[in-house]
Amino acid sequence: MGMADVVGGPAGPGSEPPDPATVDLLGILAYGELSAFDRLAEDARTAPTMTGRAALSSMAAAEIGHYQLLEEHLVRLGVSVEQAMLPFVAPIDAYHASTAPRSWLESLVKAYVGDGLAADFYREVAGWLPDPTSGLVQRVLADTGHSAFAEREVQAAVAESRQVRDRLALWGRRLLGEAVTQAQHVMAERDELTAFIIGGSGDLAGIAGLLKRVQTNHGRRMVTLGLA
Amino acid sequence: MGMADVVGGPAGPGSEPPDPATVDLLGILAYGELSAFDRLAEDARTAPTMTGRAALSSMAAAEIGHYQLLEEHLVRLGVSVEQAMLPFVAPIDAYHASTAPRSWLESLVKAYVGDGLAADFYREVAGWLPDPTSGLVQRVLADTGHSAFAEREVQAAVAESRQVRDRLALWGRRLLGEAVTQAQHVMAERDELTAFIIGGSGDLAGIAGLLKRVQTNHGRRMVTLGLA
Repeated sequence: MGMADVVGGPAGPGSEPPDPATVDLLGILAYGELSAFDRLAEDARTAPTMTGRAALSSMAAAEIGHYQLLEEHLVRLGVSVEQAMLPFVAPIDAYHASTAPRSWLESLVKAYVGDGLAADFYREVAGWLPDPTSGLVQRVLADTGHSAFAEREVQAAVAESRQVRDRLALWGRRLLGEAVTQAQHVMAERDELTAFIIGGSGDLAGIAGLLKRVQTNHGRRMVTLGLA
Repeated sequence: MGMADVVGGPAGPGSEPPDPATVDLLGILAYGELSAFDRLAEDARTAPTMTGRAALSSMAAAEIGHYQLLEEHLVRLGVSVEQAMLPFVAPIDAYHASTAPRSWLESLVKAYVGDGLAADFYREVAGWLPDPTSGLVQRVLADTGHSAFAEREVQAAVAESRQVRDRLALWGRRLLGEAVTQAQHVMAERDELTAFIIGGSGDLAGIAGLLKRVQTNHGRRMVTLGLA
């Protein structure tokens, strides 16, 4: 990818163009937030209670707050958010298409588990980025405080029915699988980003370690929901 | 309506229960924000550009910020937001069902004109409320700064095609008509609220004056969009 693809304007006199891996990471995160907004807003409509509808709508709105931070940061780097997001629209849309919830509880598990997976991965990667980008990514990944609602609702439903628990446990595994599949597609397409992640992890064994940690945290979240 | 319908818990020792008209106003506003979020989020999906999608998503997210302020305020008054919203779900849903946009430009005009109409009306009414409710409502109605995008997009489309202009001008008139229709339904159902509005306006002539001002401001917004 040439930098001409992503640079929307000069970042200011004497400033260096940002490196492609940084732009890629900000672009994935930004489209991740924008598409999560869209899916959560749609899922909110299926809420069985007004409280649930407001809770999922609030999660959606928080994603837009993060999106705006990322957009402002990209603008400061002289990059248009639209251009930065473009390469990641297809894989992220594919993730959502393959994990469209068929029930309110699936929506809640997806919101909870999907957010957690993304946060785990990006938090590690953010540590390898220079500041101020690193700090911004950490800020964007901070828990928005809405996950307690999903925890409570899922725990209650799971405690009542073993069948619900088994189905949601499978669903949680599928979410992880689909996320890994799409992440692999992205890695296959984005050379600079992949080189950056290999460099940050140390080597291929480092990447395996990172994936292992993401999986372990996923398992912990499943336990928290009562789905292990 | 008895206060038992809306009071979710004690507001604290020695505090008076809030008057029903105040609770009604906060309830309409809250459900207005929650449903506007839902419609804007859905309309954002039809955006022809990523910039448009992000702009409408941001408008939607701002509505949730307002909703949260109203919810917190109702809780302080000892009222549950769900109960306060309940009487207004049907008329507000009916407004949105009768004004479902059939195009991106209709979505933008509705977001711009609908927000403006609601803000004009509630701003007048807020003036008659005691503080801190009055101040809160003014804050919730503050322009979220996203209307500039809608203005720019609609102005550009209208300048290019007389046919587009004529259709959107009709659409703007219909939005006003449907809003007035639903407001009348609400007034017919909610005695305390109606009495409050008549009292605040002074008399029936005062209400006529209020409606006239709302209409005048609507006309000004239509001029701004190039739709007069």
